[in-house]
Amino acid sequence: MSLVRLHVEHPLGEGQIVPLDPAQAHYLFGVMRLGMGAEVELFNGRDGAWRAQVAEAGKKRGLLACRTQAGLQQDPPDLWLLFAPLKKARTDFVVEKATELGARRICPVQTEFTNAERIRRDRLQATAVEAAEQCGGTFVPEVTELVRLDRLLADWPEGRALLVADEALAGTGKAAPAGRLPRAPAAMLIGPEGGFSEAERARFDARPNVARLRLGQRILRAETAAVAALTLWQADAGDWG
Amino acid sequence: MSLVRLHVEHPLGEGQIVPLDPAQAHYLFGVMRLGMGAEVELFNGRDGAWRAQVAEAGKKRGLLACRTQAGLQQDPPDLWLLFAPLKKARTDFVVEKATELGARRICPVQTEFTNAERIRRDRLQATAVEAAEQCGGTFVPEVTELVRLDRLLADWPEGRALLVADEALAGTGKAAPAGRLPRAPAAMLIGPEGGFSEAERARFDARPNVARLRLGQRILRAETAAVAALTLWQADAGDWG
Repeated sequence: MSLVRLHVEHPLGEGQIVPLDPAQAHYLFGVMRLGMGAEVELFNGRDGAWRAQVAEAGKKRGLLACRTQAGLQQDPPDLWLLFAPLKKARTDFVVEKATELGARRICPVQTEFTNAERIRRDRLQATAVEAAEQCGGTFVPEVTELVRLDRLLADWPEGRALLVADEALAGTGKAAPAGRLPRAPAAMLIGPEGGFSEAERARFDARPNVARLRLGQRILRAETAAVAALTLWQADAGDWG
Repeated sequence: MSLVRLHVEHPLGEGQIVPLDPAQAHYLFGVMRLGMGAEVELFNGRDGAWRAQVAEAGKKRGLLACRTQAGLQQDPPDLWLLFAPLKKARTDFVVEKATELGARRICPVQTEFTNAERIRRDRLQATAVEAAEQCGGTFVPEVTELVRLDRLLADWPEGRALLVADEALAGTGKAAPAGRLPRAPAAMLIGPEGGFSEAERARFDARPNVARLRLGQRILRAETAAVAALTLWQADAGDWG
């Protein structure tokens, strides 16, 4: 049986004593029924993975004592995922999958054909934490606030390639073939179900360092496109090689 | 606005009159509120996509008249997806995504560490139909009955390559690199959350025409692995090229 994994904010290292917040204490001692001396695996996104033992267990509090390092810190390549928010379950899904597949940052963006006007950033960040706990990773991508696409492009960092997954390309021969995708630092942008507007397409064309990514013959739902695009990039230009 | 798409069993062609079953009539006339003369797009998995008009609209019945062909039949490459059933929502998700990404056949398999002992084949087939309606495709993959992995391997068709996505390879340097995946006819097998048993691994090793597929550094959930594996295969050996 594999150990329960828990993300904490506290520094981790030999001899570190890590206090639990009430939700973590409830999870470890109420839900998972761990007792004194039980082992868990901790990570904080900076110090790798650590085995720790329950040193104090209360209803709403507890302490864990770090014992040995179980794994080195492993950060994913410098890839951002930009996506137009979808319905709740599918937005959660995108965040969960982007965490598993190794995105460095997850940026909800508002495009012209995006209906969402706000997101629950804290809830999406919690989804990323939970996904990192489940997938054995030591890194949690940052989920940023919802930002308008035109603003994001206006401030775009020089040197960061932008790959646009454009459903209008499905079934056409146009666009960058997978197999020669730009290296990190990079970002990929998944449009909303309604696709991009003509003005947005023109804005992409006018920028340097933008490539269109074609994802096959069939039209993919936005969340499928996100997973497929991350997979292709990781296999081709990321750390799956 | 794009047309409502509907999968039917009836042959499609110029002048064909297509009768609706009660569920389809309810969907078109009750839910989507289509009236006489309204257009829909039909496909049956064999005759391509056809524009049709409502010629009779009742509460539990209706007729559609085929007008013009809107697209040729497009079958995906001969790729099967074999996967160990997960919890309900995640199993539905795998079927939906495999349809979008272009699998020819979807085969739930029972491995040693699979808990599921039965599936609702009819419900999963309906999920595949709905996914095909949504993604603009003209093909619906067949969802087969749950079968034991050892039986499936005993009857394995000669000449069909088997790619095994093995989570035990995450973080190791072993296994076939993406980029040189076997062509069609092929199948990919996604294991259960608990991975494959030693006996199963030995059985893979003993067969010709089996390759292991490594999906990156991190451990992917089974449904993520299914989407990632299908994507890599389509981009490398399928019809995304």
